[in-house]
Amino acid sequence: MPPDDSQSQTRRPSRSRGGGRGGNTRRSATFTLDQTPWRVPLNPDRPIEPLDADGVQAIHRGALHILSEIGIEFLNEEALALFARAGCRVTDQNVRMDADFVMEMVGRAPASFTITPRNPDREITIGGRHMVFVNVSSPPNAWDLVRGKRPGDFATFQEFIKLTQSFNCIHIAGGYPVEPVDIHPAMRHLDCLFEKLTLTDKVCHAYCLGPERVEDVMEMVRIAGGLSHAEFDARPRMYTNINSTSPLKHDWPMIDGALRLARRGQPVIVTPFTLAGAMAPVTMAGAVTLSVAETLAAIALLQYAAPGCPVGMGTFTSNVDMRSGAPAFGTPEYMRATQMTGQLARFYGLPLRSSGVCTANAPDGQAMWESSNSLWAAVQSGSNMVYHAAGWLEGGLIASPEKFVMDCEMLQMIQRYFEPQITATTPEDIALEAVAEVGPGGHYFGCAHTRERYQSAFHAPMVSDWRNYESWEADGAIQTPQRAHTLYRQIVDNFEPPAMDATLREELSDFVARRKAEGGAPTDF
Amino acid sequence: MPPDDSQSQTRRPSRSRGGGRGGNTRRSATFTLDQTPWRVPLNPDRPIEPLDADGVQAIHRGALHILSEIGIEFLNEEALALFARAGCRVTDQNVRMDADFVMEMVGRAPASFTITPRNPDREITIGGRHMVFVNVSSPPNAWDLVRGKRPGDFATFQEFIKLTQSFNCIHIAGGYPVEPVDIHPAMRHLDCLFEKLTLTDKVCHAYCLGPERVEDVMEMVRIAGGLSHAEFDARPRMYTNINSTSPLKHDWPMIDGALRLARRGQPVIVTPFTLAGAMAPVTMAGAVTLSVAETLAAIALLQYAAPGCPVGMGTFTSNVDMRSGAPAFGTPEYMRATQMTGQLARFYGLPLRSSGVCTANAPDGQAMWESSNSLWAAVQSGSNMVYHAAGWLEGGLIASPEKFVMDCEMLQMIQRYFEPQITATTPEDIALEAVAEVGPGGHYFGCAHTRERYQSAFHAPMVSDWRNYESWEADGAIQTPQRAHTLYRQIVDNFEPPAMDATLREELSDFVARRKAEGGAPTDF
Repeated sequence: MPPDDSQSQTRRPSRSRGGGRGGNTRRSATFTLDQTPWRVPLNPDRPIEPLDADGVQAIHRGALHILSEIGIEFLNEEALALFARAGCRVTDQNVRMDADFVMEMVGRAPASFTITPRNPDREITIGGRHMVFVNVSSPPNAWDLVRGKRPGDFATFQEFIKLTQSFNCIHIAGGYPVEPVDIHPAMRHLDCLFEKLTLTDKVCHAYCLGPERVEDVMEMVRIAGGLSHAEFDARPRMYTNINSTSPLKHDWPMIDGALRLARRGQPVIVTPFTLAGAMAPVTMAGAVTLSVAETLAAIALLQYAAPGCPVGMGTFTSNVDMRSGAPAFGTPEYMRATQMTGQLARFYGLPLRSSGVCTANAPDGQAMWESSNSLWAAVQSGSNMVYHAAGWLEGGLIASPEKFVMDCEMLQMIQRYFEPQITATTPEDIALEAVAEVGPGGHYFGCAHTRERYQSAFHAPMVSDWRNYESWEADGAIQTPQRAHTLYRQIVDNFEPPAMDATLREELSDFVARRKAEGGAPTDF
Repeated sequence: MPPDDSQSQTRRPSRSRGGGRGGNTRRSATFTLDQTPWRVPLNPDRPIEPLDADGVQAIHRGALHILSEIGIEFLNEEALALFARAGCRVTDQNVRMDADFVMEMVGRAPASFTITPRNPDREITIGGRHMVFVNVSSPPNAWDLVRGKRPGDFATFQEFIKLTQSFNCIHIAGGYPVEPVDIHPAMRHLDCLFEKLTLTDKVCHAYCLGPERVEDVMEMVRIAGGLSHAEFDARPRMYTNINSTSPLKHDWPMIDGALRLARRGQPVIVTPFTLAGAMAPVTMAGAVTLSVAETLAAIALLQYAAPGCPVGMGTFTSNVDMRSGAPAFGTPEYMRATQMTGQLARFYGLPLRSSGVCTANAPDGQAMWESSNSLWAAVQSGSNMVYHAAGWLEGGLIASPEKFVMDCEMLQMIQRYFEPQITATTPEDIALEAVAEVGPGGHYFGCAHTRERYQSAFHAPMVSDWRNYESWEADGAIQTPQRAHTLYRQIVDNFEPPAMDATLREELSDFVARRKAEGGAPTDF
């Protein structure tokens, strides 16, 4: 058991493993976030595949049947015109498309792509064995140990953006980590993106909430990166995620924004929310089939409008609570649906997006077993992008900074789990000389083989307390959420923004001021 | 979100899924434990295999090198004599054995075996794709929300035995779930086994703590089962688990007890505790290699003494906290070591035992991410038997009833996750007719496809609270450990022992009385 001298685990000095050029290990007189370095992890595991080849075909054929015989509604005139031009059967807003067309369009999509934010060291790859993590996106409320539950506001939004930037295990500043309802919707995207583009140097995201917002965000990302329009268009610099309105419907602003991004070479992730028993069939295969059909419909449109544009298949299939009809997350059914969708994504050659989600209302044991189930399902499914990977509570209605920190502990463990050196089997790893040297009944603490390796041999946690009960109790018996709260406050209070060219920052500020003067974006959507 | 009328989730009426002949769903006027039925789950997933064939060979050859060139100490004269007779090189207590001998002996072990306790409906299979779960074993202390941490006693022991019996997801009443230090060591095995054999009807275990205890336990299992000596010897009725004294040593009582069980056809699991950086090399492959060598040495002995006796390969390889040297559990390194050992177990054709473990001192978020990591590693490694699967805290120094209940929630989810119907893809599962019927923008709550299936479509939790924040808060904002505490008290307070023939119970009681009158077992070990 650990001796009493093991000090607070969030204040111990940084070792060599922290930092690096792309790292974000901050050093100040008072606080160092001791964490693993920035990296885009590669998942070396073979995915878990609950479906055999016939099962994949059954879902594939089911999705094609939905697309050709039942059809998907597109509440967007431009999309309807494009589908008609492509030879699809358009009846009012219903679009039916043949298998050959769908598969030809899907075949145009790249299997993998990069996104390069204003700091090129933060470039990420979406596809293959790459796996990146996104902060929690879009909760209307925040909750923390001190303030309890309350509507999101801009100050809380800023706190979450600082957490997003500070943790190396978070690769993407996704949607708003909490909705800042104290900012008028006409101006919200301007203020939020300014904060995201100045307080972080990671990949950003645009909500598809009308043409003006989408165009503003693209322009802001271009300005923050110091890019010409041609440079912006030349490769992915940001992305969007669109949701269908399941069942069988794509709404106007989502499709409009997706087309705008696709035509400028910016990635679009398509993520239906197919809740089995509510917006989708009660069977998981049925819910996945519906999700795949809705995704393929949007991808076919985007590939017809902008051949070869980067896209991804998203999954947000879960089940309802049988007693109440409310969504449940991190369930066994959720895990299998994620794995099944992963098999379909690989079948189509598309990157996969999934999520780190839970139903729990507080960052307690339930929250962590549900989130752990979600995150391991993401690993097992071969997910390339994991939304809501840190900070999500109450089925997405709450963003919590304590949960954010606790989730990052799990993400760091997953990223460590991927490192091939843990399972290396060179003669030095098998260590027969050390075994002979130590012999029976001895210990390995002091032998040369240990001394040469002990500093980097094992992952060290951020908020886990590994002391024995008595040491932990003498220090106040502080449980995980309280420790996470302390670390969250330390990070936010000691935050230093990443480097940014002063001219670009001013140009970005000027753009925001001008667009605000113009009235921002319409709010009649 | 759920309506306010969703009542306490531990008191809702049992549905058809509970019960069955082997089930343990209790019904009384006041309390029903609504849980999934008794079953021995089959793990359908392909194991995660971090090693390629060369990696498996490297560990295999390393283990054989240890056995033939470095040797293992056996502090047991009978074992040394057996090894000498088998032609192994015995020098004092050091035994070196050639690869051919080891592989011939290991080849005698069955790939799979059953264990039949006094209730034949509780028969389990160890091996193949079967996966069974064992309660926490051997903590010296207990902790609960009301009484805090305290030394284990007999009353607390009884509570844990009642939990063990009550949860259908627990298949084995393993070692003492907490050490009853208020019972004299000479009599402890008699009192504990009497409780285990009368309060449960599940498979029991004998500690190898000297010949008298081992013989007493075998006799008590035989009496409780109403078996002749020949019937007892004819097939596995119980089992033991032995630990080596890593590095490179097997102690006297463990080997003595293992030989006694093996010669009567009762299974022996061999589980070294190879903590990387302490009792084993700091590299995970080195620690696994040492563990495999120590396991094979004991199995070779048992197969020489009792050809074809049922045995299993145990893994308890983890890493230390680099700062304190204390053991850490549920780490990324632990997960990979478990998976690697699983590959070796399959290479040798042996069943695998692993564990559900954590380092945390309280049943909070850390406890659950560490335990979840351990349990998913058990799944991913193809483990056949999972020790400590419910109730373990503080690296095994604490047994907690709240943690027991929370772990059982995870075990139920894992067992549900294994059910093939979740991923079935028949035409009824793909549900194209329902998709056509509901159409765009509708919902599936009321359609026939949902109505026919909703009662059994999804797993329902025991202690998870899936209500929305406001309903949960209005009901007291009860967090997971408190909910688990309530359920634990309900189970213990409403416990009814399983049926037992009165004659056998009396015979068992007489045996205990006689052995106590004789002074019990010697305490000079």
